[in-house]
Amino acid sequence: MDSENLRHLALLLRTERVASLGTLRDGAPSVAMVLYAAAPDLSAFYLHLSRLAHHTQNIRHDHRVALMIAESDRGAVDPQSLRRVSIQSVAAMLDRESSGYDEAMKLYLARFPEAEMSFSLGDFNLYRLEPLTARFIAGFGQIFNLTPGEFRSAGETA
Amino acid sequence: MDSENLRHLALLLRTERVASLGTLRDGAPSVAMVLYAAAPDLSAFYLHLSRLAHHTQNIRHDHRVALMIAESDRGAVDPQSLRRVSIQSVAAMLDRESSGYDEAMKLYLARFPEAEMSFSLGDFNLYRLEPLTARFIAGFGQIFNLTPGEFRSAGETA
Repeated sequence: MDSENLRHLALLLRTERVASLGTLRDGAPSVAMVLYAAAPDLSAFYLHLSRLAHHTQNIRHDHRVALMIAESDRGAVDPQSLRRVSIQSVAAMLDRESSGYDEAMKLYLARFPEAEMSFSLGDFNLYRLEPLTARFIAGFGQIFNLTPGEFRSAGETA
Repeated sequence: MDSENLRHLALLLRTERVASLGTLRDGAPSVAMVLYAAAPDLSAFYLHLSRLAHHTQNIRHDHRVALMIAESDRGAVDPQSLRRVSIQSVAAMLDRESSGYDEAMKLYLARFPEAEMSFSLGDFNLYRLEPLTARFIAGFGQIFNLTPGEFRSAGETA
């Protein structure tokens, strides 16, 4: 993928605040809206999920997930041309005692300061999603299959 | 669900243009952005999908789908408060010779006039999705499990 599209991918992942999380529920597809924070190097995405949410129950039962991040539709352009990336991943719950937890929490709260209270509640947990494979639709007919390495390459763009 | 939330649901379904389509790919969740047109009575949603798209291949293999429609994030409010509805459904391809095809095509083109050319292409098909069950998040802590009847009730609101 060329450097212009790497920059477009990085901009998309760093600009948007909401994603569509695909999970399995009784073996059928299920999609929920979630907030996400991207790691600075774009190697992972963090979600802060309530244990009570259907999608969290689904993840606890089967860790395989999909995360789709799309450019917000502001009504200005043909919606088919909106940039979006569909990521396949596995959701890993972060142990509160683990070394990465505090950093992930800081990252998440920098993006969503209003979530601070939820971190003091027992029923919320941080999940880390690393991209395994992904498909980036950068525009009409511009479809790229991405590797984790390409997320990191995008992360290196300004 | 009270009449105010029925109106909010109808407004959401009639205002947005894009949805997140959840499908199964090799048994794992997959999510893609799609355009949709809602039937006037909100009893069904129409997608116009290319046979070449991954999500269409997934549907042809397993008809079970999820459709999530969320209020566009315009950056103005806490994204957790964005209204969204997660629908469980089964995607049914419309036969071009069937009685409902022309009406569905008109409905879709009224919403997306720029899609006209794609209707002349052999590799695009219309799919009809009727809601089986759904979950409507109308705001903080306002979560409703919906029946198909409630979509129709929403459809009767102005």
